[in-house]
Amino acid sequence: MTRRCICPGSYDPVTNGHLDVILRAAALYDEVVVAVLHNPDKPGRFPVERRLELISGSLPECLPVRVEAFHDRLLVDVATEVGAGAIVKGLRGGTDFAYELPMALMNRHLTGIETVFLPGDPALEHVSSSLVTQVASMGGDVTGLVPDAVRDALVSR
Amino acid sequence: MTRRCICPGSYDPVTNGHLDVILRAAALYDEVVVAVLHNPDKPGRFPVERRLELISGSLPECLPVRVEAFHDRLLVDVATEVGAGAIVKGLRGGTDFAYELPMALMNRHLTGIETVFLPGDPALEHVSSSLVTQVASMGGDVTGLVPDAVRDALVSR
Amino acid sequence: MTRRCICPGSYDPVTNGHLDVILRAAALYDEVVVAVLHNPDKPGRFPVERRLELISGSLPECLPVRVEAFHDRLLVDVATEVGAGAIVKGLRGGTDFAYELPMALMNRHLTGIETVFLPGDPALEHVSSSLVTQVASMGGDVTGLVPDAVRDALVSR
Amino acid sequence: MTRRCICPGSYDPVTNGHLDVILRAAALYDEVVVAVLHNPDKPGRFPVERRLELISGSLPECLPVRVEAFHDRLLVDVATEVGAGAIVKGLRGGTDFAYELPMALMNRHLTGIETVFLPGDPALEHVSSSLVTQVASMGGDVTGLVPDAVRDALVSR
Amino acid sequence: MTRRCICPGSYDPVTNGHLDVILRAAALYDEVVVAVLHNPDKPGRFPVERRLELISGSLPECLPVRVEAFHDRLLVDVATEVGAGAIVKGLRGGTDFAYELPMALMNRHLTGIETVFLPGDPALEHVSSSLVTQVASMGGDVTGLVPDAVRDALVSR
Amino acid sequence: MTRRCICPGSYDPVTNGHLDVILRAAALYDEVVVAVLHNPDKPGRFPVERRLELISGSLPECLPVRVEAFHDRLLVDVATEVGAGAIVKGLRGGTDFAYELPMALMNRHLTGIETVFLPGDPALEHVSSSLVTQVASMGGDVTGLVPDAVRDALVSR
Repeated sequence: MTRRCICPGSYDPVTNGHLDVILRAAALYDEVVVAVLHNPDKPGRFPVERRLELISGSLPECLPVRVEAFHDRLLVDVATEVGAGAIVKGLRGGTDFAYELPMALMNRHLTGIETVFLPGDPALEHVSSSLVTQVASMGGDVTGLVPDAVRDALVSR
Repeated sequence: MTRRCICPGSYDPVTNGHLDVILRAAALYDEVVVAVLHNPDKPGRFPVERRLELISGSLPECLPVRVEAFHDRLLVDVATEVGAGAIVKGLRGGTDFAYELPMALMNRHLTGIETVFLPGDPALEHVSSSLVTQVASMGGDVTGLVPDAVRDALVSR
Repeated sequence: MTRRCICPGSYDPVTNGHLDVILRAAALYDEVVVAVLHNPDKPGRFPVERRLELISGSLPECLPVRVEAFHDRLLVDVATEVGAGAIVKGLRGGTDFAYELPMALMNRHLTGIETVFLPGDPALEHVSSSLVTQVASMGGDVTGLVPDAVRDALVSR
Repeated sequence: MTRRCICPGSYDPVTNGHLDVILRAAALYDEVVVAVLHNPDKPGRFPVERRLELISGSLPECLPVRVEAFHDRLLVDVATEVGAGAIVKGLRGGTDFAYELPMALMNRHLTGIETVFLPGDPALEHVSSSLVTQVASMGGDVTGLVPDAVRDALVSR
Repeated sequence: MTRRCICPGSYDPVTNGHLDVILRAAALYDEVVVAVLHNPDKPGRFPVERRLELISGSLPECLPVRVEAFHDRLLVDVATEVGAGAIVKGLRGGTDFAYELPMALMNRHLTGIETVFLPGDPALEHVSSSLVTQVASMGGDVTGLVPDAVRDALVSR
Repeated sequence: MTRRCICPGSYDPVTNGHLDVILRAAALYDEVVVAVLHNPDKPGRFPVERRLELISGSLPECLPVRVEAFHDRLLVDVATEVGAGAIVKGLRGGTDFAYELPMALMNRHLTGIETVFLPGDPALEHVSSSLVTQVASMGGDVTGLVPDAVRDALVSR
């Protein structure tokens, strides 16, 4: 039986914190679906195709990871569609958990799917898409916090 | 001496989590005033009259609970107006408490009124008006999380 | 109908933080029972009679507060015995709440009794019987953190 | 490839909270090893054989769950011995997570093994072996919080 | 060697909680730069010149504190420009810390500058610019929570 | 004016987490006193002389850091004796802060001394003397978590 999990997010843009969690998930599951959720009415920082490219280009080729975009809808419906048996979320600290717990319980309520939480690499605990974007927009060097391609994309925005 | 408390909120819409706290308050106080605070300039999800109806229709008739709308203003002024000796707030976890504590201390500072915190039913700890509305708007079934009338109202929105 | 609550603790010894919560409870309820729980096999810092004296001597006379000792047993049984409709606990911060919540839910499970949480005076949030005792034993001045009689009792220990 | 996880604990005694997490783990993994860690020099509340019996007797027969005792030693060594690819821990709230995180990071540091955290059933969030034992020892009814066999064993202690 | 620190914020408007932290910083450092960060495109509640006046007017004259406005940019660049060796932030509770920690780690990542956290006066822990402004706008008396000049400015808005 | 701080602890034994904070403190202050507090009646894991040696041997020679042992007494008295203007504590997360805050407020109450909190290196956030000792005693490799001399001392215990 194939154990497949889903790593959902807006990945706008992907950070080294995201990649850390995706790689950990890939070691625990047979297949990982990285689901880029986007709302066509709210463009976000990067177009969804660009977000997919930046993730795919930052992952080793041999990994059993699929990167796909989904129109923003119930995460449990996306999980069912791709056949995922669990939602994987990285945790950066207790606050992350408090934020994620109601959604995990709601998703369990809706279809019974479990959310499994993985502690992220603590050395990346300050890294979020929004903070990295804000720092880069003011000229701060975010090398080491995001893949180099993302850093370059942020600089050229 | 009549012990009256106030359960304030926007109740947009009422959830089973809200009702759980209102019923607990009704067992502890002689009278409960459910105060629906609304800002006429920000319409919210449901008109205030509809919010009142949905609360009233979900409560047992015999309870000493009064449901009333108030234009958004200082909660301590509303409490004084209705003669409430305490503000009752349900807690869904430590994060709720951290959010509510500054307002409780501010209200105590303003008129001396106390805020008493009741732990809600943990089985409902993921239930909030905003999460339920979001889930229902994407087609998720929220039966059991809100009264049936609220579920129907959310579906027909 | 008389609204009576119980403020349980070991009060070994009573602090100004305890008194702050007892006084707030006395403003919210018709009667307050301060229940000094003690285990005859574990003597504690002060004998239970002394703990009672130190509490009683620190409260204004006119208050509807009764101070009583109970052998350590189920708090819900003590609450039933004294006819208390609620347990009142002061909160000094989010950590206090996380510690108290399981006991509150357990007590609700056992007899349905509610625990209501009152934020204590933040200016006393560092005050606990154990910290005050430790500081006093090393010669620190705890005036203002405990009643003067408690301070004197700690010094003469 | 068989995905096997380990659910470690002292299970002294097993609670419905433990069983809830074991059953969730059994739905996510091909095999679950429930590892009862015990220190022969510290007898605990129940002998280790009794703890094993109480767990086994409370699990459905058909589940791919193995219950085994281990002398207290490095959890990562136990995990390696049984061939577990992940440690599964239930979370009862943010405080649980703060307590578990350093151990999860330490275990990752030692052998690279991941700890995956599953939110437990919130309706059981007040249930711990120690609180249940304490309540039962004072005559409180813990039916519904532990398996009936555990309740009976606690009562007859 | 002069030890200089920076106390950054929007100070829109300054509260007694801000002043408490600035005074504590002034006792720990040779010089304190109060940096009022503002975004010329987002006017805020008070014009930046007014914010500076309200801070300066509320501080004792003899203190080694300089109050300056900066266009919103990387805080580490501001800190370098003014020659500050540390960023000082007051903490009002665990939630404040969780919010500030990622920014502190990011700033350390960017230039190595440390953020030192000082517990604020707990008696002011409910005081924030936004809550005070909201209360004043509804007619609540904020005397004691902000300097009198700020209170008057809030009332006349 | 010399700015001197104190870094108190039992350092039983010193970890890389402790050293990280001491080095950060040494960059912020003119002098750092590492105060090893010990209770002669409770021997601890290592004799106090050994603890001092292990700290001194792990610090670069040129640093303005003094390592001294003190019989366990009021930290504020030790701070006064060595002429420290502030207590420096590393924080490993929100839980650390909740634990340290009451002591910081108590120390401020006693002599007005401030406690300044520095976020530690997140990569070391799972490192504590007790966890490292426990892991080493069971044969786990703690290289990188403590200085090599400490690791060797733990292994030979």
